[in-house]
Amino acid sequence: MNPLILAKIISILLVMLSAFMAVPFLIALYLHETGSLIAFAETIAGTVILSSAIIVALRKRRSEAISVRDGFLMVSLSWVLASVMGAMPFYISGCIPSFTDAFFETMSGFTTTGASILTDVESLPMSMLFWRSLTHWLGGMGIVVLTVAILPLMGIGGLQLIQAESPGPTVDRITPRIAETAKILWLIYILFTALQTLLLVIGGMNLFDSLTHSFGTMATGGFSTKNSSAGHFDSPYIEGVITVFMLLAGVNFTLHYRMLTGRFKKLYRDTELKSYLFIFFASTAVVAYFLYGNTYNTIGQCLRYASFQTASIMTTTGFATADFELWHHGGQIVLFMLMFIGGCSGSTGGGIKVIRLVVLLKQSINEIKLLLHPRGIFTLRISGNMVKKNIVYSISGFFFLYAAVLLFITFVVASAGHDITTSFTAALTTLGNIGPGFGKVGPAENFFFFEPYVKWALSFSMLVGRLEIYTVLVLFSPRFWRV
Amino acid sequence: MNPLILAKIISILLVMLSAFMAVPFLIALYLHETGSLIAFAETIAGTVILSSAIIVALRKRRSEAISVRDGFLMVSLSWVLASVMGAMPFYISGCIPSFTDAFFETMSGFTTTGASILTDVESLPMSMLFWRSLTHWLGGMGIVVLTVAILPLMGIGGLQLIQAESPGPTVDRITPRIAETAKILWLIYILFTALQTLLLVIGGMNLFDSLTHSFGTMATGGFSTKNSSAGHFDSPYIEGVITVFMLLAGVNFTLHYRMLTGRFKKLYRDTELKSYLFIFFASTAVVAYFLYGNTYNTIGQCLRYASFQTASIMTTTGFATADFELWHHGGQIVLFMLMFIGGCSGSTGGGIKVIRLVVLLKQSINEIKLLLHPRGIFTLRISGNMVKKNIVYSISGFFFLYAAVLLFITFVVASAGHDITTSFTAALTTLGNIGPGFGKVGPAENFFFFEPYVKWALSFSMLVGRLEIYTVLVLFSPRFWRV
Repeated sequence: MNPLILAKIISILLVMLSAFMAVPFLIALYLHETGSLIAFAETIAGTVILSSAIIVALRKRRSEAISVRDGFLMVSLSWVLASVMGAMPFYISGCIPSFTDAFFETMSGFTTTGASILTDVESLPMSMLFWRSLTHWLGGMGIVVLTVAILPLMGIGGLQLIQAESPGPTVDRITPRIAETAKILWLIYILFTALQTLLLVIGGMNLFDSLTHSFGTMATGGFSTKNSSAGHFDSPYIEGVITVFMLLAGVNFTLHYRMLTGRFKKLYRDTELKSYLFIFFASTAVVAYFLYGNTYNTIGQCLRYASFQTASIMTTTGFATADFELWHHGGQIVLFMLMFIGGCSGSTGGGIKVIRLVVLLKQSINEIKLLLHPRGIFTLRISGNMVKKNIVYSISGFFFLYAAVLLFITFVVASAGHDITTSFTAALTTLGNIGPGFGKVGPAENFFFFEPYVKWALSFSMLVGRLEIYTVLVLFSPRFWRV
Repeated sequence: MNPLILAKIISILLVMLSAFMAVPFLIALYLHETGSLIAFAETIAGTVILSSAIIVALRKRRSEAISVRDGFLMVSLSWVLASVMGAMPFYISGCIPSFTDAFFETMSGFTTTGASILTDVESLPMSMLFWRSLTHWLGGMGIVVLTVAILPLMGIGGLQLIQAESPGPTVDRITPRIAETAKILWLIYILFTALQTLLLVIGGMNLFDSLTHSFGTMATGGFSTKNSSAGHFDSPYIEGVITVFMLLAGVNFTLHYRMLTGRFKKLYRDTELKSYLFIFFASTAVVAYFLYGNTYNTIGQCLRYASFQTASIMTTTGFATADFELWHHGGQIVLFMLMFIGGCSGSTGGGIKVIRLVVLLKQSINEIKLLLHPRGIFTLRISGNMVKKNIVYSISGFFFLYAAVLLFITFVVASAGHDITTSFTAALTTLGNIGPGFGKVGPAENFFFFEPYVKWALSFSMLVGRLEIYTVLVLFSPRFWRV
């Protein structure tokens, strides 16, 4: 453990974040939003002064020396401290008077969850709304690089290894490799965001709304600048654009890289992508079936609302164009099931992830085959490559811990007296980084009414889910803290 | 596949069942319950004639030749056909006018679930109530022998292998070994039932109620002869006796054998038993904590109702002394969590089973250790013995399939328009062979209102859960039916 180097790296990260905060600061300046202006200025100044002091004091420490153990702590601390710092403008300006609420909202932003404690989003100053959406976008950026380039090096996920062509990078070459990968991924991320913004502007949205909704989409976040979320615009074109980009954001970004460089062949045989699209289309069809005649009377309308909501929940974005709690329960349960699944690995989407479930399903089928042929040898193939046993073990452990954390958080929420549906789906939607749940946390509601300790538990749930469970839980192992 | 031998064995089983049906027949005769008398007589006569014809026709086939594949089909078919035959008296007598309902009730009996479609239990003739409770007892008898002696030979469970002292029986010696084991287990089962009946009679219950409630307890079934279940008697002594025997029924019966033969040493180091008791006491304490001041005002009352309901749900019995849906949600969620866990392996309890969850937890902890020491080798020990990797694989597949079936059944229930809590817990409580759930299937409600197709789906859920998932799902594998 090397706390000084951790302090240095996190300080650098916070300075970088405060640089991004300059954008809402300038918006506040331009729009004369004095309260916000002061709050942003104070936060930026405070962060820069404090962080610079730490960086200068530790300038002689070489950051190359971080161990895997330091890495776990760094990743968790980064998200927590970024949320503390990111919450300050909301708190200082009085836009969100409670620090618990401000932290919850910012953690929800950086983890790309999109669960909100705001009862009237539209009453916030433009600069604050922009910062709120920007936390999504930055969090999404962070998570793509984290899951594609950093976590696999630390032994977590291992999902990349399934599909890797080469033996993968070694820990020695960590820094150059991450920087290179990060550059490519961010380029794609920025490109998609720009393209979506352009398409939304063409559809008649103003630039501010286009940009903030693109942030929320590409990060599969779900914060909107409107009280009625994406439903506010009531435009099939806009919903179509958002649906397509939600689906793109839920795909492994390394596949986007392959696609953009013309390597289509790999796409056709990618098990996760095929499963992801199959689940999306099948779920949309089933949801539309239950909507037909019950909620909407034309097939077109059914498909419009079903496809948007299916994409929104499955990719763990959480935008809403309808209150799905008023739908037929058959359709609701499909959305409920999608909350477990989530997006693809290496995307900005949350949840258990499609590939993990495909591996578990194939492994279960192998177990059934073994019953019939006890001496048979059944391999597990994903995208044509054999999956090693240790990866199946890791995924199996992930699945169990996901369920365990889900029930633990459910218990904490219920301990405050909330009903089963609310407690269970509040835990599920935060752990899966989705946003809306069912019951008192449905798409037409918000998280304002929860007790402070429940809000902290749900913030923890968002963090654990976002950092692929293991990254955070490893910190609770006594071994971790043994020198 | 050898369908003729299957037909012969199942015919023998049904004749044996009809012999047990002679008891309620005699009760009907003694009490002059004419309608029931005719129904039992017709069912017994029909079964004996039909089965005897099959047995005689196939008398030259040797039953020793059954394969593992035949075994799977035999086990599933046994439970289904026993339920069809067991449903006939209810249906013929008009006590349950719909065959779907009669089948549901009987499947609920033989799978020791205890979910009921009866809105007024007390209006049934005594002989019918006796038969209803007897289905539990016979089902429990079947399941103990099945999980301890038969399924492990077919490669399912493998839980016994974890704790086995010797290399275990081979398939060649299957018949004598099963018969020997079955004899011992049934002796214990009958002994406990007799002891509980005696203790209940001492507590002032009449013999009929004592016997039927002992059947429901030892099978962890939960059918009562009273509308208000075990709460009807409102006696701390009776509740105490039932609590103790529910807990005994939820313990692996091979441990009872060891205990009764004085081999206590093994008990102290049995991981599953220790975990089971820990979960029971911890859950009781937490439930009692949430009851205190909210529902009951004395610690004694809190402990009384908390311990009974905790034991009832955890062992998957399902008796009720209170409507726990009126309790504080913190306590409700503890019961909700217990619904996933269930009893011990080799007991009459359902659910995922304590030992599976312990194995998964230990394996997950090993995965976390591996992150800190990537080259470390971490073994998984249960009761001091190392668990082989293939058993962990099998359990991991079980856990995933359990979750998958749970969500599938939830979807089927919701497709009829039922809310999330009702749909999810109806699936959970049938798959775990518990009885009551939450929402419209709470402890004060019943399953009468469900659509016929939902009742069939829930009957299927009971069967799949009772037969350890794999036994039934293997029948859906195309490989199974390939010659």
